[in-house]
Formats: sequence, C-alpha cells, structure tokens
Amino acid sequence: MIKHKITPQAENFSQWYQDIVLQAQLADYTPVKGCMVILPNGYAIWEKIQKELDQRIKATGVQNAYFPTLIPESFLSKEAEHVKGFAPQCAIVTHVGNQVLEDKLVVRPTSETLIHYLFSQWIHSYRDLPYLINQWVNVVRWEMKTRPFLRSNEFLWQEGHTCHVDANEAQYRAQMMLKLYQKFMQEILAIPVFSGIKSETEKFAGAIQTYTIEALMQDKKALQLGTSHYFGNRFAKAFKIQYLSQENELHWVYQTSWGVSTRMIGGVIMAHSDDRGLVLPPRLAFLHVVIVPIFSGNKELILKVAQNLKDCIQQEAKGVDFWRDIQIKIDQDESKKTGWKFYQYELLGVPIRIEIGPKELELQQVYVVRRDILNQKKIVKWDNLAQKVLEELENMQHALFEKAHAFKKANTMEIHTWEEFKMHSKNGMGVLIAPWCQKKECEAWINEKTKFTIRCLPVDEEMQLIKKPGKKCLCGDQGKIIQAIFARNY
Amino acid sequence: MIKHKITPQAENFSQWYQDIVLQAQLADYTPVKGCMVILPNGYAIWEKIQKELDQRIKATGVQNAYFPTLIPESFLSKEAEHVKGFAPQCAIVTHVGNQVLEDKLVVRPTSETLIHYLFSQWIHSYRDLPYLINQWVNVVRWEMKTRPFLRSNEFLWQEGHTCHVDANEAQYRAQMMLKLYQKFMQEILAIPVFSGIKSETEKFAGAIQTYTIEALMQDKKALQLGTSHYFGNRFAKAFKIQYLSQENELHWVYQTSWGVSTRMIGGVIMAHSDDRGLVLPPRLAFLHVVIVPIFSGNKELILKVAQNLKDCIQQEAKGVDFWRDIQIKIDQDESKKTGWKFYQYELLGVPIRIEIGPKELELQQVYVVRRDILNQKKIVKWDNLAQKVLEELENMQHALFEKAHAFKKANTMEIHTWEEFKMHSKNGMGVLIAPWCQKKECEAWINEKTKFTIRCLPVDEEMQLIKKPGKKCLCGDQGKIIQAIFARNY
Repeated sequence: MIKHKITPQAENFSQWYQDIVLQAQLADYTPVKGCMVILPNGYAIWEKIQKELDQRIKATGVQNAYFPTLIPESFLSKEAEHVKGFAPQCAIVTHVGNQVLEDKLVVRPTSETLIHYLFSQWIHSYRDLPYLINQWVNVVRWEMKTRPFLRSNEFLWQEGHTCHVDANEAQYRAQMMLKLYQKFMQEILAIPVFSGIKSETEKFAGAIQTYTIEALMQDKKALQLGTSHYFGNRFAKAFKIQYLSQENELHWVYQTSWGVSTRMIGGVIMAHSDDRGLVLPPRLAFLHVVIVPIFSGNKELILKVAQNLKDCIQQEAKGVDFWRDIQIKIDQDESKKTGWKFYQYELLGVPIRIEIGPKELELQQVYVVRRDILNQKKIVKWDNLAQKVLEELENMQHALFEKAHAFKKANTMEIHTWEEFKMHSKNGMGVLIAPWCQKKECEAWINEKTKFTIRCLPVDEEMQLIKKPGKKCLCGDQGKIIQAIFARNY
Repeated sequence: MIKHKITPQAENFSQWYQDIVLQAQLADYTPVKGCMVILPNGYAIWEKIQKELDQRIKATGVQNAYFPTLIPESFLSKEAEHVKGFAPQCAIVTHVGNQVLEDKLVVRPTSETLIHYLFSQWIHSYRDLPYLINQWVNVVRWEMKTRPFLRSNEFLWQEGHTCHVDANEAQYRAQMMLKLYQKFMQEILAIPVFSGIKSETEKFAGAIQTYTIEALMQDKKALQLGTSHYFGNRFAKAFKIQYLSQENELHWVYQTSWGVSTRMIGGVIMAHSDDRGLVLPPRLAFLHVVIVPIFSGNKELILKVAQNLKDCIQQEAKGVDFWRDIQIKIDQDESKKTGWKFYQYELLGVPIRIEIGPKELELQQVYVVRRDILNQKKIVKWDNLAQKVLEELENMQHALFEKAHAFKKANTMEIHTWEEFKMHSKNGMGVLIAPWCQKKECEAWINEKTKFTIRCLPVDEEMQLIKKPGKKCLCGDQGKIIQAIFARNY
C-alpha cells in the first residue's frame, strides 16, 4: 500500500527524502537498529548499478572473488591507523551458539586486513603482479545516526583491492578507478561531480592518499559518492606482502583499494527527485514506460493497440545499448482511477507515461509524458512512437545531467577572503572554492565557524594539488596555499 | 602458481577433490576457521549460476530484495523447532566496539525469522498476496567439520520466501521451485538428480515438508543440492502474519522458502571432474576455448590466423544462446612449453583446446580437443571451425549429462529385503531404493547398521509419496510402507 503525501522539499528536505524512500518503496526500516531492508524497487536500481559498473571494472582487468565476512579481531590491529578508524564501529562476534570463541571475530567493516593477509600468502614473484581483485558484498559499520541508503549500519558495496610492483603503478590504478567512478556517475547516475584528494582529517584510516568523488544534492549539501585509496607500502609492511623482482630482489608491493556503495542510490534520489516523488535517470529505471489505457469506449481494441505499441517499442529497443531489456507495463487495472495511476507512476519515477483513449484510437496517436517535464505532454503518432520513446529516454538521461550540472554551477562559487566565505556560506551557496593553508587547525576553525568542511582538494590534469602561490588562506596564513572545495556535507 | 600433482580419484577421493579445488584455484583456505575464500575461477562459476538461475526465478514473478545480515537473537526463538535447529550454529554479535549490545544479534544462518516479521508489517489484505521475494546473500552456520564449497562456516546462496492465501497455493510454489531447481541442475550443471520429500529426521527446522534434490557423486555418495520448504501457517502463527480476505475475514498466510548455494559448485566438481583436474559443463565455463599456437616456423602468421579464428568463433557465437559471451584465449606465452600448457588448461577445465602449428597452417586446419574426451583429437578445417566449436560445446554439455546419468543408473538399485540391502550397501552400490515403514527408529537402525541414510522419499506425478501396500519394510514391519531412497551422504 502506497500512501499519497510527500512533504515538499522546500518545507523539510530530510522528511521529503524519507517520504520518497518509503512511499516509492525503495527501502524500509527494520527492527534491527540502523539496518534497512532494500525493497525490490530499490534493489532493482542496485542491480542496474552492479551490472553496468561490474562490466566497467572487469574491463580494466579486475576479477571478482568472495572473501569471508568474519575477520579475526587481531587482524584489524595490524595497521595502527586502520584499527583506530574502524574498531569503534565494528560488530564483534564473541560466541557461536553458547560456546565462547577463542579468537573474537569482527563482521567486516571493510576487508583490507583479511585480503592483505591472503595477498601475503599468494604473492611471491613479480609474475604474480599486478594482483587485481574485487568483491560485491555487505559490510557492517555501526553509526550513531542512520538514514536509509545514506548512512546505515549495514550497506552493500563493491570493494576492489590491488597490489602493484611500485608506487607509480599503484597511484595510476587509484586514479584510474577515481576516473572510472566519475564517468560512471555522470553517464549512468546523471550526476555531475567534484573530485580530488581528501584532506588528512578526512582520509581513509590507513591510507596515504584518499581520492574522493563528491556531488551536490538539491539541499546544497555535498554527498561523498565514492573513494579510491592509495596505500603506498604501509599495509604491505604490516602484512608482509613482498615479491621477488626480475632482478631477484625482495620488494614490498604497493597497494590500492576503492569502493562505491548503495549510498549512490541515496545520491540519485537527492540529486533528481521532486515533490511528486522519485525521478530516476532512465538508465537506472526498473520500469521505463507505463502505458495507461483510458477505458471508455472500445476497451478491447484499446488494449490490443496498447499491446501492439508495447511490442513495437520492445522490437525497436532490441539492438540499442541500455534499452535492450526495456521494461514496459500496460496498466489494465480497472479498479483504480486514471488520475490515481498517474500519481502513482510519477511517485515511482517511471520515466515515460503513454496515455491512450478513444480519441487517440481514432486519430492513431497517443499522449507521451516524460517524468522530468510533466507539463510538456506530447502527441505522437503510432508510427513514430517506438523511435520517439527511445529518443525521449536518451533525452531525459541527458536532461537530468544537464539540470544537475546547471544546479551545481549556480551553487558553486570561487572566493578569496574570509569575509566572502562567511557571507556566502550563510546566504545559501552550496560549494565554496577557496585558498587553504593545509593546516588541520585552520580546517577545524572554518568548520566550527561555518559548518562547512573540506570535501576535497581539487587536482590538475597531472593529478597534482592546485597551488595558489601568493594567495592568502581564509585564516590569513600565506604559506603552502592550495585550492580547496568546501561544503556542508552528509 | 599452480602445482601439478592431483591425487588420483581412486586412491583418495577426498584428497582428489581438495587437490582440484586448490590447484584449479577455485577456492582457498583462510585464517578464519572453516571459512573459505572463493577465488576468481570459482567465483566466475557462481556468477554464471547466478545469472542463469536469477532469470529463471524472476520469470516466476519473484523479485529480489536485501534484508539485514544481523538478526535479533530473540526473533530466532519465536518458532520453537526453528531455534532448536539453528541456535547451536549461530555466530552471535554481543558487542559493537567496546559497547555491550542490549539485544544480541545473530549473523543470519537463514532469514525466515526477520523476513517473516517484516511480512507481518507489510501484508494486510488478499491484494498483497502472493508475496514473492528472494535474496542473494552470504549466510553463516558454524560446522564441526568443513570442506570448501561442500560444508563451510560461511557460504553464498539465494533464499526465496513467499506468502500465499492458502495451503494449496503455497504447496504449489514449494513444488514449482523444486522442479525449477531440478531443471536448472540438469540443463546447466549437467547433473541428473533424485528428488522427493525429506523424512521427519532430515527436514528443515520449522518446516512441515522439505522437498529436496540429491545427486550422486563419483564416489557414490549423495550430495544434497537444494531444498524447498512448505511451512503451512506455522511461521505465520509465530509471527502473526494475517490478511483480510475478499470476504473480510482474517486468515493466516501459508508460506514457503527455498534455496540453493555455492555447494552446487562442489557438486559440479565431484560429478564431472577427473584425475587431470576440473571438468566443467561448458555452460558454466569461465573460459570456453583456448587456442595454443605451436611456435615453430612462421610465428607471426600463426598468431594472425589464431586471431582470425578467434574472431570467427566469436562472430558465429553472437546470436546463440549460452555462447553469446564466449570466452576465447590465445596463449602466446613463449616461456611455457606446449605440453605444460595442455596440462594447465586440462586442470582448469577449459572445454575446448585448439592447436595450430606450421603443418596446420599449410593444410588450413587445426586440431580440436574436447576436455571430456581428450583422446579423440579431431582435425577441423578453418572454414568449419566456428560452427564446429559451438557444436562441440553443446555436445559436451549433453555428453556430461549423459555420462552422469549412466553412472547414476548403474549405481542405483531397487531392492526388497534387508539381506539385499546389507549386501549392496557394502559392495559399492550408491543408491538403494527400498520399502520403508516411516518409523524414525527404523531409519536410525538402518543408518547405524549400514551408514546409509534416507536421502528422500520419492513422489509420483501428483507429488504424493509412493505407497507400497503389501510390501515389507527392511525392518520387517508391514504397515504404511512407502518407497525410500537410501545412500551415504555428504
């Protein structure tokens, strides 16, 4: 049963988000604290994400595997920074049945430690490198405050782990995955992003460098959508992962890890949806087209035509990337009113609605309505419908990106002084690009005064921090000034 | 690094199995007691299984979802039989970080309890039924003795859960899934199976009826490959899952659950492989064809032809079910000897090997060798190769099934007396079909005397137990005699 009342976005963004998640049946709460159930409508989006992203990851030479969900607690402690970051969030298994375990196990919060231990068993020679592995799994990280998809005690993700002969190759991989994620998010999620390097304060526990992708949501807060970590040989030394080089010398491997999660679903909702409900990029839609017959007059004939049109669209879609498995539904339910149906499919984010009634039958045409521009009803002749539908799906995919891109642009500002920063962080600007001195204390001070945090440090084409010699930091300092991207964040 | 020594099957079946698992790099041991890592070669088989089975399950109207991995311990106790069966095997989370949890959580051994609780929140009316849901997840069940794929403290599976308006519809679903599994195993795993109902002793904790699929391995022991449970309204009563009927009356729902797991990979290995290594049904192969160029003479030309042949095969495969994504490798490595390569790809279970050297170049032909009939090397002209390869993949798929079928037939015997049973259970017969009185004590007595257990009680076309009035049980009793299938088991 779907209830019909979404809190307007402008009134309460957080409630609006929750209303969409629950009413579009993407996820639901459970009696397990902070853990959600991902419902079929939400899981179908995850399956689309998995299918598309998995192909792209495999195309870079990475293979999938599956590692145990339970990790000896002692493994976590082998890298000092890592354990400090994750230990407080770990769910700990102490018993099996009523037997006490000798060695406690943690439910994986991430799998570096166990996988790195196994790397040390598997990797012996330069011939074994690069070692490129990925897994699609659930992880558990206990949080104080949780929200479906955005921050949940359990979530689904992919985590890739790689070993390389040297620092350059590992850095190249970490950066390659950042770019791969970025392209995926733009092409499939229709979300334009910021990317760069995390500040020391925000980076992954145990990493030398964390590359990150951040996106601006409609409430002008930034959401971290994916990260890629460069570990250097830190974990290699902790787990003794060494290889014999071609010259017969022992070397440490250099490593990376990288992941994206079901959090992206939350990002898609907050980037595109509106007060009528979910707006989904067509490439992520679980149902692309709904045909709503208006039942007055010759019902049987209308249904027959609807079926023909459905077949035509599916035929046309067969050879076309992304739309090969196009899902089309004819809603024959006579117990529901047409207006109710429209509302329903808008709530569910179905990209295209086709209406056909007695008059359309006569004129051999239909009405076509796109979810992102509901007020632009179009008349389309039957003959052109299949082609038009595919065109509109493509158009909508691009239109959502363009809209989000314009929003991002309108809410991003480069500024130069602390006065400007204070003013624009208060008057509703989302993203502020400003000079920064790289000091932790300065970062903390800006956060305290404005609630803005450093989302990332942008990089140039050579993936180097953008230096601003001669500029002054917001705090007034003048040494080692670089560019930083500030925003409030999830 | 792959070592080259597989213990012969006849010498030590269990060691033979382990050698294949490790040397074909399907799985490896980990420092987590009884938990394996599924390596890329093994995981690729699981991905093939998932893809094919997921389609078939969805085609019956089931949708995928994801439920939390941690379940409140108290939920498990709500169904008395269920908790008795699973509690001793459950990994229990008592802490998060150093905070003690008020309510202990178990890592899901199966998800009936949590999912049924949620069903009680979601299902209100007959309009909500049938409710058909499935998830692909990891589960943890602690075992005394473990073996990769066959019995592991953690494994991957799918678990389907359904609710229905009445007993008939639920029974129909439980049986439908049994048949779906059976067809899948025959068509994709190339494994002929027995199916039927579990005896009271062997059924799922909490079920009224457990339908099961069992297959005979090459050591003549039976492996349970999948189960489908009919719960009646037992769990519905424990979790208060009721609906308002069309007549506005409150009714309990009737339920089922059903699952298959990574154990099937173990079954595939033990059903088909040989002393040279893995033999994989082509529909499960991660690499279908390897082209091995014999490098003497015009190396460049040989490689060019190999590439052309590869392209041709891929072109031919494009429109063909199962082979659309055919994987073909040209092994150009000059540091390895040809014989070593042959051995390697036999170990890995690559269905088809193509050899091409200077003489074949001259005669515009190649040698084609099929993994299951290594001694039948065939000469094939280049022009016919693409077609021939697809034909041989199909042939091999069917040949493996036929071979396993013949093995099953040769090792199954219908018998009538205790004397016969004793004799044939000792002299190496795998499966004995015998009359049984349905008494637990008799089942235990037969097991004690022969190590044979009841694998299932066969059913007729109406899914009814096969009655044998007038026959005598093995124990001498004469009442309520039915047919039972006995075997030693994993």
